[in-house]
Amino acid sequence: MLVSALLTSVGINSGLCVLFFTLYSILRKQPNNYDVYIPRLLVEGTSKGRSGFNLERLIPSPGWVRAAWKLSEEELLSSSGLDAVVFMRIITFSLKVFLVAGIIGVFVLLPVNCTGDQLEDVDFADFSNNSLDVFTISNVNNGSKRLWVHFAAVYVVTIFVCYLLYYEYKYISSKRIAYFYSSKPQPHQFTILVRGIPVSAGSSISDTVETFFTEYHPSTYLSHMVVRRTNKLRSLINDAKKLYKRIIQLQSNPTQHKPRRGSCFGLFGHKVDLVDQYEKKLEDIEENVRLEQSEISLAGEEVPAAFVSFKSQYGAAIAFHLQQSINPTQWVTEQAPEPLDVYWPFFSSSFMRRWISKLVIVVACILLTILFLIPVVIVQGLTNLTQLEGWLPFLKSILSTTFVSQIITGYLPSLILMLFLRLVPPVMELLSSIQGYISHSNIEKSACNKVLWFTIWNIFFATVFSGSVLSQVSIFLDPKNIPAKLAVSVPAQASFFIAYVVTSGWTSVSTEVFRLVPLFCSLISRPFTGSKDDDLQVPSIPYHRDIPRLLFFGLLGITYFFLAPLILPFLLGYFCLGYIIYRNQFINVYAPKYETAGKFWPIVHNSTIFSLVLMHAIAVGIFTLKKLSLASTLIFPLPVLTLLFNEYCRKRFLPIFIAYSAECLIKKDRDDQNDPAMAEFFDELVTAYQDPALMPIHYSGNLESLNTPLISSASV
Amino acid sequence: MLVSALLTSVGINSGLCVLFFTLYSILRKQPNNYDVYIPRLLVEGTSKGRSGFNLERLIPSPGWVRAAWKLSEEELLSSSGLDAVVFMRIITFSLKVFLVAGIIGVFVLLPVNCTGDQLEDVDFADFSNNSLDVFTISNVNNGSKRLWVHFAAVYVVTIFVCYLLYYEYKYISSKRIAYFYSSKPQPHQFTILVRGIPVSAGSSISDTVETFFTEYHPSTYLSHMVVRRTNKLRSLINDAKKLYKRIIQLQSNPTQHKPRRGSCFGLFGHKVDLVDQYEKKLEDIEENVRLEQSEISLAGEEVPAAFVSFKSQYGAAIAFHLQQSINPTQWVTEQAPEPLDVYWPFFSSSFMRRWISKLVIVVACILLTILFLIPVVIVQGLTNLTQLEGWLPFLKSILSTTFVSQIITGYLPSLILMLFLRLVPPVMELLSSIQGYISHSNIEKSACNKVLWFTIWNIFFATVFSGSVLSQVSIFLDPKNIPAKLAVSVPAQASFFIAYVVTSGWTSVSTEVFRLVPLFCSLISRPFTGSKDDDLQVPSIPYHRDIPRLLFFGLLGITYFFLAPLILPFLLGYFCLGYIIYRNQFINVYAPKYETAGKFWPIVHNSTIFSLVLMHAIAVGIFTLKKLSLASTLIFPLPVLTLLFNEYCRKRFLPIFIAYSAECLIKKDRDDQNDPAMAEFFDELVTAYQDPALMPIHYSGNLESLNTPLISSASV
Repeated sequence: MLVSALLTSVGINSGLCVLFFTLYSILRKQPNNYDVYIPRLLVEGTSKGRSGFNLERLIPSPGWVRAAWKLSEEELLSSSGLDAVVFMRIITFSLKVFLVAGIIGVFVLLPVNCTGDQLEDVDFADFSNNSLDVFTISNVNNGSKRLWVHFAAVYVVTIFVCYLLYYEYKYISSKRIAYFYSSKPQPHQFTILVRGIPVSAGSSISDTVETFFTEYHPSTYLSHMVVRRTNKLRSLINDAKKLYKRIIQLQSNPTQHKPRRGSCFGLFGHKVDLVDQYEKKLEDIEENVRLEQSEISLAGEEVPAAFVSFKSQYGAAIAFHLQQSINPTQWVTEQAPEPLDVYWPFFSSSFMRRWISKLVIVVACILLTILFLIPVVIVQGLTNLTQLEGWLPFLKSILSTTFVSQIITGYLPSLILMLFLRLVPPVMELLSSIQGYISHSNIEKSACNKVLWFTIWNIFFATVFSGSVLSQVSIFLDPKNIPAKLAVSVPAQASFFIAYVVTSGWTSVSTEVFRLVPLFCSLISRPFTGSKDDDLQVPSIPYHRDIPRLLFFGLLGITYFFLAPLILPFLLGYFCLGYIIYRNQFINVYAPKYETAGKFWPIVHNSTIFSLVLMHAIAVGIFTLKKLSLASTLIFPLPVLTLLFNEYCRKRFLPIFIAYSAECLIKKDRDDQNDPAMAEFFDELVTAYQDPALMPIHYSGNLESLNTPLISSASV
Repeated sequence: MLVSALLTSVGINSGLCVLFFTLYSILRKQPNNYDVYIPRLLVEGTSKGRSGFNLERLIPSPGWVRAAWKLSEEELLSSSGLDAVVFMRIITFSLKVFLVAGIIGVFVLLPVNCTGDQLEDVDFADFSNNSLDVFTISNVNNGSKRLWVHFAAVYVVTIFVCYLLYYEYKYISSKRIAYFYSSKPQPHQFTILVRGIPVSAGSSISDTVETFFTEYHPSTYLSHMVVRRTNKLRSLINDAKKLYKRIIQLQSNPTQHKPRRGSCFGLFGHKVDLVDQYEKKLEDIEENVRLEQSEISLAGEEVPAAFVSFKSQYGAAIAFHLQQSINPTQWVTEQAPEPLDVYWPFFSSSFMRRWISKLVIVVACILLTILFLIPVVIVQGLTNLTQLEGWLPFLKSILSTTFVSQIITGYLPSLILMLFLRLVPPVMELLSSIQGYISHSNIEKSACNKVLWFTIWNIFFATVFSGSVLSQVSIFLDPKNIPAKLAVSVPAQASFFIAYVVTSGWTSVSTEVFRLVPLFCSLISRPFTGSKDDDLQVPSIPYHRDIPRLLFFGLLGITYFFLAPLILPFLLGYFCLGYIIYRNQFINVYAPKYETAGKFWPIVHNSTIFSLVLMHAIAVGIFTLKKLSLASTLIFPLPVLTLLFNEYCRKRFLPIFIAYSAECLIKKDRDDQNDPAMAEFFDELVTAYQDPALMPIHYSGNLESLNTPLISSASV
């Protein structure tokens, strides 16, 4: 890629960013858009007052940037929970890493690269037409002593990243424990989920659970709630809610109250009052729901799974940690999620069924990954202008235009890729939900992992290897030659990834703040729904979409920092934008839907370790390729030490993120005992895990509390 | 290899077996050899009476075979514990597998193989000079429909083996639970080992432990015993014991009591009474020991590790399963071994030290595996006569003699290999003991695994691949081609492994019953030690030597059954011999030193699964090589299903072998509560984990109870 193409791309994207930000500054002040840009403030009631028109509303102002900048970590913690803090720490962690790597890269490595003359066809006079390769390690002469600078940089950055990783892990661990101590008693801390309850003939599951736990946990057992099969009921309730919404719409909108005139069939249409008709239908459904509810509660469509609550958190932890039954596939315990976090659909129960669905999902993920390569390869073809001309000769005249060719090489490929990738997080979330996780948080965590590895495989490796070898799978079946192949292919794609950071990265943050899709949806649906505030759903941040994206840019930065240091300023720009924008979104848009208390961090840690080791593998290959075999030998201890460091962290910190220690639990229990509110809490605990489908329907606009399937739109 | 060479080998080894058995039948009746052949009966006092000479003593009799045959599983369980039962079940499991595989192999596959004519240079008239390859799958014509018989055999045997594996796992699990219920209360069930105790300035470790457990386990905590650094003390005690033994010898043997005349310096030697001199020295050492003991107890060379005992088994299990401290590297808990099973030397304590020593041992094992290849490759050269003649031309005349060449090809190679392999189990045990395991049983279990994989790698893969490719590591770096390479190399070594079963297998069982090494040791030391019975040590069976051997022959049988079914009758012979002989040894020789209650079985299970998958990989390769690609495709589901089966077993049975469930523990605790002997038991429990080095020296001959390092001879 040429420098001018990159500059074009940077220009377009900077322009887009400025445009988006300006528009955002104006649009967010329009009361019509409050539900898009400040739904959280609206629901919390902080921002209802402003409605009068004034000129200020039309002038872009940077006030929101200042507010986002000034937000302290404590404020974020209290308003959005520990998960939001962890999310922001991914960004600050990346900022720290790439600030240090950027200083080394731009002020040390870049000059070294430029002064080489391995790529001889470079003409410095015509700077703007230069290939970007001049700035990469490819330009350093083979066997040059200057490569030791790169060698030292690899060591320094690895050590710095490991130090930061350790520090962050420790910090977040301590935050997690502090959060636990400071939290009010919560139902999920006193509860476990038991699956694989053996059903003996003649007794119900509820009785079996009662007998078992009063027998083996007599001093701590409090109550239980057997899970029931409510799929049918849930769809009935959804129907009722839709109908109710429609009725409300019709009633509040007198123009639509009359027999439909808008439709082209209106003239010949039915004259019956629609509202009456709908109300009758709703009554029918409600009757059905009540029938079904009583049927389920009485006849007992019980699933062999139950939420079992205990009198102390330590008691629940004991039941969770110890294998309960002689047969390990029975009475399988796991930590209960928060009541609102439970994912009721797909509540598959039997050991075998869960196990098989897990296997099926693993296969499905592999298939998805393999099939996804096809569009990626086509997209990669677009960056190869000569190849494209070869395929489609009639395009030759168009492609020879400088501007068109620059657009195509610099912008279009990554845009297409980005659009494809938009589809991946919902699909992965769907797959995770089928896999048998019982909470939204676990589904998102699993989807986060899936999306991350999917992205690394399908963007990084597919891009790197499709230029040279189409079938990248065969490369990984020949592990000996991976470093050599990486060394050849990775630097060759430096310009693509620089452009990718600018286009995909910068665009993603600006669309994040601009909320393009919700804005469109709001604009389209507004005429029909009216401006009912209680209809408003506060969205939650889709961690499984945003964390993999941040981590993938982190991987690009770590692997490319010594190959093509030019990528670092753009990455820093990306993370700076992200820092401001996500803070703004946490203040104004997103409300936490659940609290994992930092359980997303281990994913970040593992991904960074993987990036480091990948970087080392590339370094080994590069130094071999550059005929500096001593350096490539001396790199070898680095991945080994990095993996050992990772192993140590796994032992030192990971257990804290899986379960709380006896020390914590007992201290917390003792604190709670002195709390006079505990009696009331236990009363509530008994019914905390009631399936919402079995509770009376309530038609509040806040659908959140009704536990509609998070991904119902994706799963249908 | 020729049929005649194999027959020679079978002849020699059958002769050796008969000779060994006859000699054994006679020698075991000589009172002088009682300490070698029936030490267990001697110590138990069952067999002291017989001492008068009669003619019967010189006539070989098969009475011991009958006794071994008639031993029931219940008797074995009560006399030698569950581990012995599990050991015998490995043999019966193999017998069942190879009986079925043998019937299929000999009566179905062998005729199919023989009727092929792929190997054209076969002359059936001269049968004894035939190559053994006629009986292998290599002789079946390429693309022949008859290969479907082999295909079906692979499926049938895999299903049968998996069924048996499931059945055995289930049986042994139930035995394990039954054993737990029926056992008397034992100290290790009430105790955990705590490591990584954080030492705060100003307080001793003992106080810290006391404070922590009375704080967090007030209702179940009973007592604790801090581990102390006793390496120095232990060597002093050993010196004292050696000296004591020497004094006893001198006193009981009046001829040696006088000033040494036997030595050539006797004439000019010291006239001082040796016994007096030794006794003075012993007193000095004993004084030192007492000093050191009180010093350690008072000044406290405490290691930050302690055995913590609880009032119930459930209490101990809770403390073991839950992470105790906020910092997961502190207060690390593990199940305590039986008091006599504790391995006191190398009681390394800090988290980091154990971790590093573990890493070092992993590296050492890899190095050992790589270096060991050298002698194996040389040994393999011996089977290649032409190669040997090429290297050493002067041997040509000797090697052309039929008998010599048959000896060399049929017998010598595997004998040399066997001698080398003798060294492996002690070395692996030493490595495991350095790795930081705290009990003899865990050391043996880990060594068992190490020896198994070592054997598979260094015998199976080295033999298979050194004939064609010297560097087998490179094959495993190219996983795609493994089946193809296995298919070429594995059948080529069929004759070697048939000979290996006969030589190594049959010889190992006959030397096992004959106890060649202990017999020699006894013969040599007898003149010096006299016949003191209380000096007698009952040996324990070295599981880490014998289990890998059985499993390796199992692997050979499973991988070769459809390639060269001729191996199966010899394997059946091996397991039949083993069945009788090991039962005999359990009755007469070995006494259990510890009881893991069947924890060795998962190793057997995993090894068998590995054998099956290896067999499938070879089958894929073979069918591709034989141009029956449909069959090689249809084999693919088999390894997948086998691994899924393994995964299921891991979930269904493995947890039972790691820890007992809450249900078991609570039931057992309730049973124990009604036991009037419990008060006394708890009194003993408080001091059960006292380091034997800190107790007064007692000079009984039974060194077992003094916990001398199990492998002291190997580690020096």
